[in-house]
Amino acid sequence: MNDQLIIFDTTLRDGEQSPGASMTRDEKLRIARQLERMKVNVIEAGFAAASNGDFEAVKAVAEAIKESTICSLARANENDIRRSGEAIRPAASGRIHTFIATSPIHMEKKLRMTPDQVVEQAVKAIGWAREYTSDVEFSAEDAGRSEIDFLCRIFDAVIKAGATTINVPDTVGYNVPEQFADTIRTLIERVPNSDKVVWSVHCHNDLGLAVANSLAAVRAGARQVECTINGLGERAGNASLEEVVMAVRTRKDVFQCDTRIDATQIVPASKLVSGITGFPVQPNKAIVGANAFAHESGIHQDGVLKHRETYEIMRAEDVGWGANKLVMGKHSGRNAFRSRLQELGVVVDSEEQLNHAFARFKELADKKHEIFDEDLQALMSDESSEPKEHFRLLSSSFHSETGETPCARVTLSVGGKEAKAESCGSGPVDAAFKAIEVVADSGAQLLLYSVNAITTGTDAQGEVTVRLSKEDRVVNGQGSDTDIIVASAKAYLNALNKLHAKLERVNPQI
Amino acid sequence: MNDQLIIFDTTLRDGEQSPGASMTRDEKLRIARQLERMKVNVIEAGFAAASNGDFEAVKAVAEAIKESTICSLARANENDIRRSGEAIRPAASGRIHTFIATSPIHMEKKLRMTPDQVVEQAVKAIGWAREYTSDVEFSAEDAGRSEIDFLCRIFDAVIKAGATTINVPDTVGYNVPEQFADTIRTLIERVPNSDKVVWSVHCHNDLGLAVANSLAAVRAGARQVECTINGLGERAGNASLEEVVMAVRTRKDVFQCDTRIDATQIVPASKLVSGITGFPVQPNKAIVGANAFAHESGIHQDGVLKHRETYEIMRAEDVGWGANKLVMGKHSGRNAFRSRLQELGVVVDSEEQLNHAFARFKELADKKHEIFDEDLQALMSDESSEPKEHFRLLSSSFHSETGETPCARVTLSVGGKEAKAESCGSGPVDAAFKAIEVVADSGAQLLLYSVNAITTGTDAQGEVTVRLSKEDRVVNGQGSDTDIIVASAKAYLNALNKLHAKLERVNPQI
Repeated sequence: MNDQLIIFDTTLRDGEQSPGASMTRDEKLRIARQLERMKVNVIEAGFAAASNGDFEAVKAVAEAIKESTICSLARANENDIRRSGEAIRPAASGRIHTFIATSPIHMEKKLRMTPDQVVEQAVKAIGWAREYTSDVEFSAEDAGRSEIDFLCRIFDAVIKAGATTINVPDTVGYNVPEQFADTIRTLIERVPNSDKVVWSVHCHNDLGLAVANSLAAVRAGARQVECTINGLGERAGNASLEEVVMAVRTRKDVFQCDTRIDATQIVPASKLVSGITGFPVQPNKAIVGANAFAHESGIHQDGVLKHRETYEIMRAEDVGWGANKLVMGKHSGRNAFRSRLQELGVVVDSEEQLNHAFARFKELADKKHEIFDEDLQALMSDESSEPKEHFRLLSSSFHSETGETPCARVTLSVGGKEAKAESCGSGPVDAAFKAIEVVADSGAQLLLYSVNAITTGTDAQGEVTVRLSKEDRVVNGQGSDTDIIVASAKAYLNALNKLHAKLERVNPQI
Repeated sequence: MNDQLIIFDTTLRDGEQSPGASMTRDEKLRIARQLERMKVNVIEAGFAAASNGDFEAVKAVAEAIKESTICSLARANENDIRRSGEAIRPAASGRIHTFIATSPIHMEKKLRMTPDQVVEQAVKAIGWAREYTSDVEFSAEDAGRSEIDFLCRIFDAVIKAGATTINVPDTVGYNVPEQFADTIRTLIERVPNSDKVVWSVHCHNDLGLAVANSLAAVRAGARQVECTINGLGERAGNASLEEVVMAVRTRKDVFQCDTRIDATQIVPASKLVSGITGFPVQPNKAIVGANAFAHESGIHQDGVLKHRETYEIMRAEDVGWGANKLVMGKHSGRNAFRSRLQELGVVVDSEEQLNHAFARFKELADKKHEIFDEDLQALMSDESSEPKEHFRLLSSSFHSETGETPCARVTLSVGGKEAKAESCGSGPVDAAFKAIEVVADSGAQLLLYSVNAITTGTDAQGEVTVRLSKEDRVVNGQGSDTDIIVASAKAYLNALNKLHAKLERVNPQI
């Protein structure tokens, strides 16, 4: 059996479907570059038919990435597949991933199709996809609750039609490892020509078993795992790329295969995705949590000190902890700044943009002694927000004193025009948001407010995430600044800008 | 085979060993009461011999809790076991949990004992423990890397000596499910009188497999799982109680056993532990993450709407989402306040303390329209901080304006004396921390700063966590206020108070 495990990252597609995790084209590009640097085999860049924005994002990733295969998801209909085919056309290596539901409940309640119709539609879909690429993946949506005989039948049909990867998703996260492994083993045994295709799994984490189910499938013969950075994804998320990769690597004796992943890029990727989506990583998250390699200080049972191997099965530096700490300061020059950005995968489009970013860097360096990679990432996130911002913060002032009501004044640019407002509130952040709403009058509801210091030290930048909902849309805004109130105001305005730029899209569930 | 799965919660012992998660006696009591309400079978309340503080905390929990068994951990030596025995004496049902390492690497490098000596010590330990209680648990530390023959030998010996629960920990999180299940199955088959004891597992999450390993062991015959709320614990943590309980319940067809847990108390417990430790729960955490039951709004593929079961395998309300939203306001009376605190498990020691808390509640209700349970929890956390605080915030004022350096003035009580200071900084939080340090001069380093809004709405209280390190100690401070700068100052002072109250302790690793 082949000993290479293909890592298929769907952070940009299934990960992005988390409520509030939607990303701009530029944000997707930055993550894609990091995934390429990590040597991910396949990057699912989006669902091209969802909206024009999604189409453009998939195409931009297909143009920029050379070392990974770029994939677009498509429902099993002609329009979806042709849109995907167009979007991946610029890719050095492109894949179309088409799917249709195969469980009785989904065929009956959602598709309203008979099993015969479903097979026929799937075969047609493979045909359309093969017009664009010879790399075609087929997924049976809700395979975890589908009948095994029907799965064998539809997989046989799509392999004959030219599918090269067969994906078995556990869409609702209902499976347990031994049973899921049995399903995969049975499929590989029973489906004709199963040795001509790569078997893939896509697991959801509703019962906390996405990684375990994926690994059980690998032992049963699957050779592609679909996963996301930090386990991002709808509800409880997808299998975590970092856990799958490190489990297989640490326990090669059991799994008898390995990935081509450069694991030292894992922690930088985790921080990048967490920063862009505003989804924090909990400290006790395996591999990428802040405590994953930390032991309580002052333990008297000094096993760790006496013999490192006593308590450590992986080394922190192997997954990229501490690797990415190059420090810049106020004396760093323009060239050092530019080349560090390049190493971080941030592409600056023009000299003008570079000059502007460098000026902001100098401003930050005046306020803060040491500039870490994370500070640069945050600065460039701020810099590369939507090109045409409707709302922008020009200046602000805040005052709070024990016994008095905190108040804020803000001056905004709204569609190019200056507007001033002031308001008081239960705290300075509340006052700032209320002052902004005096001008914006958005009617949005604040769902979540959180702050993480990006680096250590009291002069760290605060990165604020604000989640707003309006009608049935949910958006995340981010803002960073050494002043937490200013960062909060920026984050709020960033979210308002996203609400302002209306977008229509469809989100598939696999 | 018995179909009851015993849930052994070690949030207060192994969970507390996470760097920065140490808890006060009052905080442990509040969590213990919530665990009792959830019907946890066994609460491991601490490691009584670690310090006087730990002894007092275990004893306080043993006095307060009636419906759960209270357990203290003890190394296999006479002093540890006698301290544990004293600490659990007040319990309605008490257990001593003693352990010794059994892997070649640990016996040789850490214990420096021969296998014969280890067996002899373990048998003696059970004898001492049986002087205090007939409920004695024995753990083989690092069982995951121990030789199976030696495990059988030592388990046989301790069962003969009177151990009633045999625990098999995967101390370093190195196991994978099928293999771990094989180990448990083999032990149950080979150890004489294995049917007279309860088999238990204790899994760590370094490869993201703690829950999967625990569940695989249950299928192999284990009938106790050791776990923590939110998977709290050293490094990547322990198995998550909520995931184990809900997997077993949702897939009763596979596991053929169930717990007595009241699952509607899961989300309140998660929030309580997260609030007290300052460890956030990531949104894509299974069961208790903010997104665990959320679907992206505006999905056009309306499976969820058409038929609920299409995408849902559990109901949010079954695990306590939305259950705990009783709202109080400025018109709520003293009796309503008292009875809500009782329902939340917050015990108020005296009328004076109740009056003080009620006054603070009224103050908060003036600033904030609706008071949720989480607000009350935060208020009472603040209220019940260490009885004798060395540092306390009396008043403060902050000012920041675009183009000027933000400045803060604080008035503190230091050991009862008033002290004033002011400072400027890169932001108002930085300025406040620097002003505090003008007075405190602690020399501590800021490791982490984070904020979570406790409830939704712009008038929400911010709950700030500050992690400080000094020499080899790490402490977390929390503070909450509707003004984020005030909350930050309180959190910083809370951390300084914890550093001020020096404590010496040992932390075991199992």
